[in-house]
This record gives sequence, C-alpha cells and structure tokens, in this order.
Amino acid sequence: MYLNKKRLAHIVFDSDDRASKLFDIVLLVLIFGSVTVAILDSVGSLHDEYGELFYVLELAFTFLFTIEYGLRVWLTSKTFKYVTSFYGLVDLLAILPVYLSFFVANTQLLSVVRALRLLRIVRVLKLGRYLAEADFIGDALRASAAKIQMFLFSVLTIVLIMGTLMFVIEGPEHGFTSIPVSMYWAIVTLTTVGFGDITPSTPLGQFAASLIMLLGYAIIAVPTGIVTSEMANRKRKSHYEKLKTCTHCGFDALEPEDNYCRICGEKKI
Amino acid sequence: MYLNKKRLAHIVFDSDDRASKLFDIVLLVLIFGSVTVAILDSVGSLHDEYGELFYVLELAFTFLFTIEYGLRVWLTSKTFKYVTSFYGLVDLLAILPVYLSFFVANTQLLSVVRALRLLRIVRVLKLGRYLAEADFIGDALRASAAKIQMFLFSVLTIVLIMGTLMFVIEGPEHGFTSIPVSMYWAIVTLTTVGFGDITPSTPLGQFAASLIMLLGYAIIAVPTGIVTSEMANRKRKSHYEKLKTCTHCGFDALEPEDNYCRICGEKKI
Amino acid sequence: MYLNKKRLAHIVFDSDDRASKLFDIVLLVLIFGSVTVAILDSVGSLHDEYGELFYVLELAFTFLFTIEYGLRVWLTSKTFKYVTSFYGLVDLLAILPVYLSFFVANTQLLSVVRALRLLRIVRVLKLGRYLAEADFIGDALRASAAKIQMFLFSVLTIVLIMGTLMFVIEGPEHGFTSIPVSMYWAIVTLTTVGFGDITPSTPLGQFAASLIMLLGYAIIAVPTGIVTSEMANRKRKSHYEKLKTCTHCGFDALEPEDNYCRICGEKKI
Amino acid sequence: MYLNKKRLAHIVFDSDDRASKLFDIVLLVLIFGSVTVAILDSVGSLHDEYGELFYVLELAFTFLFTIEYGLRVWLTSKTFKYVTSFYGLVDLLAILPVYLSFFVANTQLLSVVRALRLLRIVRVLKLGRYLAEADFIGDALRASAAKIQMFLFSVLTIVLIMGTLMFVIEGPEHGFTSIPVSMYWAIVTLTTVGFGDITPSTPLGQFAASLIMLLGYAIIAVPTGIVTSEMANRKRKSHYEKLKTCTHCGFDALEPEDNYCRICGEKKI
Repeated sequence: MYLNKKRLAHIVFDSDDRASKLFDIVLLVLIFGSVTVAILDSVGSLHDEYGELFYVLELAFTFLFTIEYGLRVWLTSKTFKYVTSFYGLVDLLAILPVYLSFFVANTQLLSVVRALRLLRIVRVLKLGRYLAEADFIGDALRASAAKIQMFLFSVLTIVLIMGTLMFVIEGPEHGFTSIPVSMYWAIVTLTTVGFGDITPSTPLGQFAASLIMLLGYAIIAVPTGIVTSEMANRKRKSHYEKLKTCTHCGFDALEPEDNYCRICGEKKI
Repeated sequence: MYLNKKRLAHIVFDSDDRASKLFDIVLLVLIFGSVTVAILDSVGSLHDEYGELFYVLELAFTFLFTIEYGLRVWLTSKTFKYVTSFYGLVDLLAILPVYLSFFVANTQLLSVVRALRLLRIVRVLKLGRYLAEADFIGDALRASAAKIQMFLFSVLTIVLIMGTLMFVIEGPEHGFTSIPVSMYWAIVTLTTVGFGDITPSTPLGQFAASLIMLLGYAIIAVPTGIVTSEMANRKRKSHYEKLKTCTHCGFDALEPEDNYCRICGEKKI
Repeated sequence: MYLNKKRLAHIVFDSDDRASKLFDIVLLVLIFGSVTVAILDSVGSLHDEYGELFYVLELAFTFLFTIEYGLRVWLTSKTFKYVTSFYGLVDLLAILPVYLSFFVANTQLLSVVRALRLLRIVRVLKLGRYLAEADFIGDALRASAAKIQMFLFSVLTIVLIMGTLMFVIEGPEHGFTSIPVSMYWAIVTLTTVGFGDITPSTPLGQFAASLIMLLGYAIIAVPTGIVTSEMANRKRKSHYEKLKTCTHCGFDALEPEDNYCRICGEKKI
Repeated sequence: MYLNKKRLAHIVFDSDDRASKLFDIVLLVLIFGSVTVAILDSVGSLHDEYGELFYVLELAFTFLFTIEYGLRVWLTSKTFKYVTSFYGLVDLLAILPVYLSFFVANTQLLSVVRALRLLRIVRVLKLGRYLAEADFIGDALRASAAKIQMFLFSVLTIVLIMGTLMFVIEGPEHGFTSIPVSMYWAIVTLTTVGFGDITPSTPLGQFAASLIMLLGYAIIAVPTGIVTSEMANRKRKSHYEKLKTCTHCGFDALEPEDNYCRICGEKKI
C-alpha cells in the first residue's frame, strides 16, 4: 500500500515516465476543455442552444478536478505548504466556484474563477526549455524592478497632474467629468492606446493633449532601454561565470582557454 | 534539343546574364500589374467603369502565369520538390483561382488568392544584399523564437484573464457581449491599438482597463529587449568567426592581427 | 533655545533618527490624504454628499502645510535659496490656492495647484536606492538631451508639414478645420495614439495618413535606440571608473586585479 | 566693389562674426514669423478678423525672402549648384507661391509651400553640436537602410494580404468598401494607431484583426532592434578609430595609452 501511494505521487507530481506523462497530458486536455466550455458558454447564442450541455460538462470537469485536488492533498508530503502555495490556491479556485454556485446566485462571478484554471497549464509546461526562457525574462524584469517601479511612479505622477489639468481645461461639459475620469483619459493617451471615447475639444485642451502624447511617445524608450540593457548585461554576465580562478595566486578572471595564469605565470593543466 | 532545355532552365531559374535578367524583370512587371488590377477592381466605381477590361487583363495574366508554371514544372530536375515547395504552391495559387472561377460562383474568395501573387516578388529579389539582410532579421527572430513563444503565451494568458474580468465587470449592456468579444477588446487595448468601438464605462471597468494599458505599455519592452540583445549578440558572434586557430597548440581565439600565439608563443606568418 | 532650533531643523530636514523619520511619515500621510480629498471632491456625486467635509479637511490640510512651510522658512540657514528652490515653490503652491480662494471666485484653478502637492512626495522618498535609480534614468536622459532635442525638432517639422498637407487635402469639411487642428491630428497619428475624433475620408487623405503612420511606427525606434545605447554605454563607463592609476608611470587603465603595471612593469601591492 | 561682394557673401553664407550672426538671427525671426502667420491665417475666426493684415505681412515676408534669394543667387560662386540644391529649391518654393497666387486662383495649395519654409530653419542651425547629433542619427539610419527597406517591404506585404483578407471577410457592408480602404485599415491597425473609424464586426473579422494587432505589437521590436544595435555598434566603432598604428611593424590596434607595441616591442614616444 505504501509503495502504491509512492507510485501514485510519482505519477501526479513528476513527468519522467509513461504513466506520469500521460497524467500530465490528460490534465492539459481537461484544462483546455474546461476553459473552452467557459468561453463558449459566455456567447449568448451558444448558451441558449447548448447551455445545459455546457452545465453538465462543467460539473464533470469540476468532479475530475476535485479528484485531482484530493489526490494532491493526500499524496504530498507537505500538505500545508501545498494548500497555501500559489498552485494549491489555483487548484482550489478551479473547483470551489461550482460548489459555491449551489449556494450563490451570482453566476457571473464564477466565470472569473473559471478563467483562472488556465494558470494550471503552467504547471504542466515542465518542458524545461520554456521555463528556462521564462526565468531569463523573469530575472531581467526582477533585476530592473526598482527602476521600473520608479518609472511607474513617474508615470502616475504625470497622469495625476495632466489628468487634473485636463479636468480644469476641458471640464465636465466636454466629457472630463471628474479627476478620476481625467486620469483614466490621461492613461489612455500616455500609453498611446487612444480609445477616442473622451477627446479634448478646446484649442488649449488639444495643445495639452499634444504634450502628453509626445511625452508618452518619448518615455516609452525608458522601460525598453532598462529591460534591453539589463538583458544585454545578463548575457555578458553569463560569460563571466565561465571564468576560472588561479589555484596559485587566486586571480579569478582566467579565460577557460588560458594555459598560463596571466598574473603569476603558474601553468594550468 | 537537350541544350535548349538546359538554356531555358537557366533563363527561368537563374539571373546572371541578359536573357535570364530580362525574364525576371518581365515577371516582376507582370506580378505588379496583376496585383494592381486586383486592387483597382475592388474599388466599386472603377469596377463599374472598367470591370470588363480588368477581367480581360486578369485572364491574360493568368494565361502568362500558367505558361510560367508549366515551364517551371517541365524544366526543374526535381518536379515533386518544386510542386510541393512554398513557391511552387504560391505559383499554383496564382493561377488556380481563375480556373476555379469558371466553376465557383463566389468571386470574393478569388481576391485573397490574387493577393498571394505578391509573394512571388520575393523570388525575383535575388539581389543578395537584401536577402542577406532578410536572413539577418530572420535568424535573430528564429534564435529568439522560444522566448517570443513564451512571451505570446503570457500575453494570451493576460488577455484571457483580463477579457473574462472585463466581461464580468462591464457586462453585455456596455458592449462586452461575450468572453471572446472581451478578449478581442483586451487585445485591442494591450497592444495599444485602441479602436474605441468598445470602451469601459463603469469606474471599476476604467480602473481595470488602466491596469491593462499600463501593462501593455510596459511589456512592449520585453520583445524589443529580446530581439535587440539577440541582434547585438549576433554582431558580436560574427566578430568571433574572424578569429584564427594556432597550428601549433590549437588555441582557437587568435586575433587576425596577432603575430605570436598568446598561449604557446609559436610565431605566425 | 539655539539647540532646540537645531534639533527641530534636524527633524524637519533629515531622516536618520526616530523623530525625523516620524515627521517624514506624518508628512507623507498628509500629502496622500490631501491629494485623495482633492480627487474625491472632483467627483460630482461625492461632492454633493460630502462637499462640506472635504472643504473642512482641505482647510485643515492647508493649516498643517502652512505650519510646515513656516517651519522650513524659519529653520533653514539659507532662507532665500529655499524659498526660490523647486521644492520651496511647490511648498508655497501647496498652501497658496486656499488663501487665494478667499478672494478668487474661480475654484477650478485651485485643483491644479492641489495636484502639485503630490510632487512633495518625492522629497520624502529619501530611500537612496530609488533615487540612485532615478539618477541613473535622469543621467541617461540628460546625456541624450541634445539627440532627443534634435529628434523632437524633426518630429515637429514633420507634424507642421503633414498637418498643413492634410489641411489642404481634407479641408474644413472633413474635420481638419485649421492648420493647428491638423497639427493636433498629425501628433495624434504620429505618436500612434489615434483617438479617431478626426479621421481622413478622402482616398488621398488616407494615403497621406498611411505615410504618417508608417513613419511614426518606424521612427519610434530612434528615441529607443538613443536611450538604450546611452544606458548600455553608462553601464560600461561605471566599469571604467573602477580602473586604477599606476603610481610610477601614471598609466590610468589598470584593472583592479592586475599585479604589475602593463606599461612600466612596476609591481602593485 | 569686389571686396564688398566678398564681404556680403561672408555675411550671407557664414556665421562666425557679428554681422553674419545678425543676418542668421534676422532670417530665423522672419522664417518663424512667416510660418506663424501662415498657421494663424488658416484659423477661420482669425482669418475673418485679421485676414487683410496677414495678407500684407505675407507680401512683406515674400519681398524680404525674394531679396535673400536674389542675394544668394548673385553671391554664390556656383550659381547652378545652389539653384538646383535642396536648400536652393526650398528658397525658391518659399517665394514662388505668392507670385503664382497673382495668377493662380487656388489659394489652399499655397499653404503647403508656405509650410516648407520651416525647412530653411535647419540651415541656420549651424550650431555644430546639433548637426553632429543629427549626423549620428542620420548615419545610423543610413547604415540600417537596407534592413529598414526589407522591413518596410515585409510590412507592405502583410498590409496587402491582411487588407485583402479583411475585405473578403468583412466586406463593403461593414465599412471595408475596397481593397485600398482595407489596406488603409490594416496600416492603421498594424502601426497600433487604431482610429476606430473602421472596425471589424464579425467574429472572424475580429479574430483576424487580433492576429494583425499581435503581429504589429511584436514586429515593432524589429526596427527598434536594428537601429539600437546599429547605434551601439557605431559607438564601439568610434572607439576603434582612436587606435594607432605601430611605425615599426605596422600593427594597427595600439591603444592611445600604450607605451610599447604589443606585437614587436617597439617603444612609442
């Protein structure tokens, strides 16, 4: 019985033999299936025609994900750590809404939680190569975090000041009904999205808007510059990690191909 | 007769003497001409006036491209490989629609296939310099493919989650009629296109939209960073390819201007 | 009394012990509070319900900021320099509007000045790390200033010429009512914001607009390239600053790990 | 008289003493003035009120620019080269429209030519520093020209194919009235401008539009990467240009601070 549990844990948590890989693929198919059902069910005409089928499928997916969640809780050696981990919470959120729906009336809220199921896909993407690349991007972003934070703070300061300015210049009669709405407009403009649901109509307002647009067009260079130079730096660093240390004098920047230490002349083998 | 076929194949497939260059230029003119006719014919007022002329020209272009396709099939030494190659399929698609149109009633579908003819222009652009540059861009993109794939996957996850969120917040009464439509809106917003055909109108929706816009504005730095650092890396690599190898000790990082091997002292000529 | 004043100045201007840190935190809370009140008060429904409360809070904040301003003027050793400094003017602007409002009737103008209070937050952000990052961005921008100025001049030249061109092509009947309005449209288009409040409707106008859009899409690479290469350069420079100078021959590019001077052979300790 | 002409030519063409600098400043003021008048005259309300004043000013500016053009033609030693040069044509275009207006009835065409006057400002910007920066940007763009050309060709191919596709999918009933209009829409979308004057309304059209947007969002990295890596490369090159050549052995990569040739040991002075 003990061996059976160990074998089951291997199938559920790893993915290096046939059974465990099959488990991952089945899970992947279930996740894609449940997300697809949630998306299709939101389309009015499809809901009217296949609503009941979608509901039955939803219950089936929930039943299967409940078994998976139960297995993970039972099989893991660190139950508390798993339950409170990011994926543990995602797994719980993937089944909870349906059980709640038996008591809760607001079905719209459920769609949000259903979409969160897609996050479970990441867990199955243990393809190494992809995660290594994700780490590369994640590391570069993390190393630039302080700079990006400073950048976001500057952006929000600009948004607050320009939003208030436009509220004063254009006023509620031209769609800038309050400072929060004006700030929403400033973000729409500064990020160059430009919906056009609110637009300046006075000459002064159009002039101020032009300044925000040119500013937004220019400062997009800042986050790009930060991330790019960080990534280029990261590549250079990975080169330095290949350097060796001289066992004689301790010089620590020997190229892998050096035969003699550049500082003390000690021969390398 | 054998020599004639060889000579003809040279004219059709190469472009290094007068006849073969003339063939390329005539083909180029024909491609531009047929694309222009297809574009002009789509304009209502021009179609009403010159519709019959355009139809005659279309038939003439098709006739000439059919001859070209026949020549290529007949002259190539690897017929099957050519017919199933990318350009072979493009060549076939460039003539097929008109023949199909004698049987098919839906004439709109033909325009798509007509536009594909422009791809044939690439074949004639054997100017070397341009293709070398295209290779440079293509290589940089290919080397970053895994990272770009990861990036697109992240973008789609954001789009799915934010789309569902906006569908829940704004709902069908404000234009977010289903999750697919909300996801379309999320892509329009995240990519900073911002058509404005669907816009949030509740305060909470405008707040969530602001987050998506700032996110889209910030993460555009990621693909730029990936491609730029890859291109910079590629330039550095092409420098390393100029390094020579020592014939005595095998050290493989000699600068082209080194007189003595830096490792074993062997004199270079 | 002298010591009291010195101690007070320490609390107000520094932030390295308990009392001075508490002063900074209280100030931070007051700034956030007054900005929040200004934002909420601009929302019509909230103003109708809590307008009087907001007014009382506004008076209270002004009273406290007046005390702070008085303290700074009294405690600083260089009164004139403080009053005419950037932060001195911000501090004055943070209290002046309310006093002016007793005489001025136009209350909308006050909101602008209220928003400027947020700038005071920067002063409290003496977290070093963040300012170092801000300096990094600021330095990179300043070093690129001449290039960015040239870039902005080119952009404005394009905007003037394309704006006039579109005014001539589309004319007042399609929304391009004057050259200034056309230039506003050209900025909206070149920066890829694209509100859609004014759009070309003639074929020639749409063709010219396409050129502006492709231009705007291509030249965004220029500021990004300038800032990125400047930042990468800056990182390389900070490496050069670690180089030492030989005390014997004055050679100034010794790596920190060099044992002997590369030029005169002098041994380093 | 000969000396007078030489002195005048110095004043007109150079800017290194008081008289010639004054000439440049007066010209700068005239250019800004005439451009401002052209812009203000395009505003309906101002034209109604000050139309006659603007016309008189326009005549005065034209008179002065005619004198300047006459001086340049008379004073230059290479008359033909000046008249056919870029600035020579700009100078001619700056005066021709008014003379033409005595014969031509269409006054709108004149505004375009008036705007071209701004280009004359560049000539006075002989501030060296700015032009050096402009050269830097210009050189980087020129060196990337082949790559950018290839990029633009790819963009136009995408625009043609996607435009035709959207014309087929959405059709004239949803605003995609012809292939040229659909191509205009594809450019608006691919460059992330997104006016919203034409938007897809069928599910399939919205799906195809999403693909174009993601494509446009991703490939903006390509021109940025090209220009940035070119600029970074350019900075590195300017370092190599400082390297010296050994007079003894001809080794051409000596750092400016090297005392001995790294290859043959020859002492440097």
